[in-house]
Amino acid sequence: MQLGSIEAGGTKFVCAIGNEDYRVQDKVRIPTTTPEETLQRTIAYFKQFPDVKAIAISSFGPIELRHNSPKYGYITDTPKQGWANTDFVGRLKRDLPVPMYWTTDVNGSAYGEYIMSTLFNEQIKSLVYFTIGTGVGAGAIVDGHFIGSLGHPEMGHVRLKRHPDDLNFPGICPFHGDCLEGLVSGPTFEARVGKPGKDVPLTDHVWDIMAYYVAQAALQETLMLRPDKIVFGGGVVSEGFLVKVRAEFAKLLNGYVSVGKLTDYIVMPAVKDNGSATMGDFALALNEYKK
Amino acid sequence: MQLGSIEAGGTKFVCAIGNEDYRVQDKVRIPTTTPEETLQRTIAYFKQFPDVKAIAISSFGPIELRHNSPKYGYITDTPKQGWANTDFVGRLKRDLPVPMYWTTDVNGSAYGEYIMSTLFNEQIKSLVYFTIGTGVGAGAIVDGHFIGSLGHPEMGHVRLKRHPDDLNFPGICPFHGDCLEGLVSGPTFEARVGKPGKDVPLTDHVWDIMAYYVAQAALQETLMLRPDKIVFGGGVVSEGFLVKVRAEFAKLLNGYVSVGKLTDYIVMPAVKDNGSATMGDFALALNEYKK
Repeated sequence: MQLGSIEAGGTKFVCAIGNEDYRVQDKVRIPTTTPEETLQRTIAYFKQFPDVKAIAISSFGPIELRHNSPKYGYITDTPKQGWANTDFVGRLKRDLPVPMYWTTDVNGSAYGEYIMSTLFNEQIKSLVYFTIGTGVGAGAIVDGHFIGSLGHPEMGHVRLKRHPDDLNFPGICPFHGDCLEGLVSGPTFEARVGKPGKDVPLTDHVWDIMAYYVAQAALQETLMLRPDKIVFGGGVVSEGFLVKVRAEFAKLLNGYVSVGKLTDYIVMPAVKDNGSATMGDFALALNEYKK
Repeated sequence: MQLGSIEAGGTKFVCAIGNEDYRVQDKVRIPTTTPEETLQRTIAYFKQFPDVKAIAISSFGPIELRHNSPKYGYITDTPKQGWANTDFVGRLKRDLPVPMYWTTDVNGSAYGEYIMSTLFNEQIKSLVYFTIGTGVGAGAIVDGHFIGSLGHPEMGHVRLKRHPDDLNFPGICPFHGDCLEGLVSGPTFEARVGKPGKDVPLTDHVWDIMAYYVAQAALQETLMLRPDKIVFGGGVVSEGFLVKVRAEFAKLLNGYVSVGKLTDYIVMPAVKDNGSATMGDFALALNEYKK
């Protein structure tokens, strides 16, 4: 059986063909230009594979995912030039008459990590996936289902207790200033220390400040959802950084609830090379086909 | 049909008999003394109603609610004198051989409010219930199911951005200092202004500070769960206070996601006289009986 994955990002689309074992059989990158051109090239790609039974799409957003909305399947009020109010699923369905599953980029990644855990026979019922890169987002799965009924989570914009050594940094979120994204997204390195994060060694105190905030995000998810695992992906995250995050998390939690071994609880993605969303999409496409 | 409800609180147990329309037919209050005496009196009460088909228990905690744990049905490491490590459900089952449902006090209340909404034909799929009283807790329902797989939520202990006029207040939580409970539970009034909250008029600035924190708690739930409704109960909460909370919430959210009309979104309990948990228990007992 062939299944399709579309990881729709703000700079590129990754389209892939896989099987029901979630193995990638073919893959292409399409630069994100105008909606017309990008979706047209996406359609042309999948037209080469007439045996594809279903396609799952993990998209940048915000998106409309309420089935009872007339805008279901749309990218809604995104700041990305030209993409606001784009009928993504509707456009694809015109030319690709297969079942489609529509969700957020982080939900796709969360599902990939969830499926990967179950393949390793972990007793996982719930999982949170964070991406910390240009922006900050999170997807959450509870009992195999995505969280969010009025819409998808926007965990990037929660408020946090400020680090005592960071009180003068106003944050860079245009909507909220010092929300999570405004304090820890990749571009905060330029704003705080005048150079990109990849040039800032982990011994720099700015990483401790980052870890304090990211640990609070993990704490919020822990105390509100009590998930089995929290996965951190995205360009800002490394195993060395997560060592700091776990240490801050332990201090903040202060033993209040049990989360098991921290090295199993706060982790990097198990699927390598940013492949979580593609794997998640194959699994979601398979679910959609079986419906 | 007769159904049983036990609202097990730290100062009193409210035991009630109801029918499948969730109407209370009989009710008794039992002071919370030792586990032996309190549970014995609870059992004696329900022995009078041999037709009761199932009982739901909403208990103070922390409690163990993972069915695969040997301590399932226990109140675990509570600071309440004499109650740590109490086999609550096991003790009841010895003398009351009916199906029992075991959950937290706030989950019982959340379920009562959820059921009440569905009775009014609201299109509710998810709901969060906060209690702000001696302590702070929350229960959350998504698609009809309680959130929490490693354990129940402990939303009372999240960290928050501090109000600029409250930076010197250290908070009163013995575990975390200035977590949500440490900043807004009832006893913070004594700690901040030297008198109980009921003696502090709503025009006092301390209520604005409280509203700022409670609005952040609502914001965290909004951005993480995207629930249909957030209900606030407990001794600290009044409609006048929620007016302030909604105003702070609107400022913090800054239009980022849509939650509908705030007066329908952030609300007092629909079930009057603290009856949410009893109603929720009847519904949960009915579910358990039907299994």
